[in-house]
Amino acid sequence: MKVGAKIASGKTKNIYELDDPSLVLIEFRDDVTALDGRKRDFIAGKGAINAAITAKLMEVLNTSQTPTHFVKLEPPSAIIAKRLRMLPLEVVCRNIAAGHLVKRLPFKEGDLLDPPIVEFYLKDDERGDPMVNKRHMAALGLATPSEAEYMEEATLKANEVLKRFLASRELTLIDFKLEFGKLPDGSLIIGDELDPDCMRIRDSSTGRILDKDLYRRGSPLEEVLKAYLECKRRIVEGG
Amino acid sequence: MKVGAKIASGKTKNIYELDDPSLVLIEFRDDVTALDGRKRDFIAGKGAINAAITAKLMEVLNTSQTPTHFVKLEPPSAIIAKRLRMLPLEVVCRNIAAGHLVKRLPFKEGDLLDPPIVEFYLKDDERGDPMVNKRHMAALGLATPSEAEYMEEATLKANEVLKRFLASRELTLIDFKLEFGKLPDGSLIIGDELDPDCMRIRDSSTGRILDKDLYRRGSPLEEVLKAYLECKRRIVEGG
Repeated sequence: MKVGAKIASGKTKNIYELDDPSLVLIEFRDDVTALDGRKRDFIAGKGAINAAITAKLMEVLNTSQTPTHFVKLEPPSAIIAKRLRMLPLEVVCRNIAAGHLVKRLPFKEGDLLDPPIVEFYLKDDERGDPMVNKRHMAALGLATPSEAEYMEEATLKANEVLKRFLASRELTLIDFKLEFGKLPDGSLIIGDELDPDCMRIRDSSTGRILDKDLYRRGSPLEEVLKAYLECKRRIVEGG
Repeated sequence: MKVGAKIASGKTKNIYELDDPSLVLIEFRDDVTALDGRKRDFIAGKGAINAAITAKLMEVLNTSQTPTHFVKLEPPSAIIAKRLRMLPLEVVCRNIAAGHLVKRLPFKEGDLLDPPIVEFYLKDDERGDPMVNKRHMAALGLATPSEAEYMEEATLKANEVLKRFLASRELTLIDFKLEFGKLPDGSLIIGDELDPDCMRIRDSSTGRILDKDLYRRGSPLEEVLKAYLECKRRIVEGG
């Protein structure tokens, strides 16, 4: 398939047109960022790892009645996906308290959250990605109440599917972030990525961190790469 | 009625036991505070004004199928109220964008919010009163999903009643904050206060500020007192 013009470029991904206008190519770059982009590095090979993990996890969702934009992996470091009009929202689902939640609210790191917590954030680096509720989203024209309800339910369903799949690979899903977009017919599906950049994943027995928390906490970049490779080995190769 | 021991003392109110154990006396003090208590002054007479305004507005709610804890005014500056076990939550309802909302999210001061926005905040000065959603409240044991739903609906109903009443006094209700508590039978009702300390109220024709925003913005204390007196004149005396 012929790769066309670049449509958009985020902190870690580029998006290109394809000759089929209903599809896009999403290239995962080797950039790694934290603190709303204020910390930034490169880890050679990270893009390919994340493309492969995203492809596998979205394939798992696609075959579990939780549709995503994923169509196919385009090695080494891209995926072909359905073209979506993305909503400027992040939907976070938490099974175990960590990160922002324990900084902001009286939860302790490691607290079990059952039922899981779902949070919506406005993607807005300048404002520090503020949390929003369904009434804010409606007033800002971001999502109707029923669209917000759909995203919450789809996120909870994705959580169940991912938690179960990752557990089968001896991995514990602490939390993750989804982004949603609209198909031309207006229906919402899961877009963006699903990899250790936007999920907290721990080894189920040892608790070893296998996600971007290592980078956030200042681990050497080779340690971060090793963890991402281990994550890929388990998720993609069935490790 | 005999006033007993002090049960609690907040930033602007003291609460005392009464000989009837199902009731409390709430004394409105002359303190005025802002910035989570970091700014603090005294305005002689403010306590009596707020007690009278709270009494009138809660009477309006009580007679409109929106039950509050209010029983009767105890001049000059107290009310007798049903004793509640208060939830450490603030429920904010917004008809027009102002204050925290325009600082945090892409709304402009004065934007009409229709339907209104309802927000829940955890009362926690140390954490800066963080916003919570229904799943946070359930996980923190603060309110079940149906209790949260009830508080949201009761707040929207109170908003309609208060908006209509204030409009009849040539006042515009920008936003307000409610707190809820439980009666011994477990049912939730509106507690706390309803006065210019926790509501944004403007003159409908001139837009003149008649609430604590004057104090937040650094107006002289005598100007703040004048606005509160005008607010009381319109609300209590029918202006």
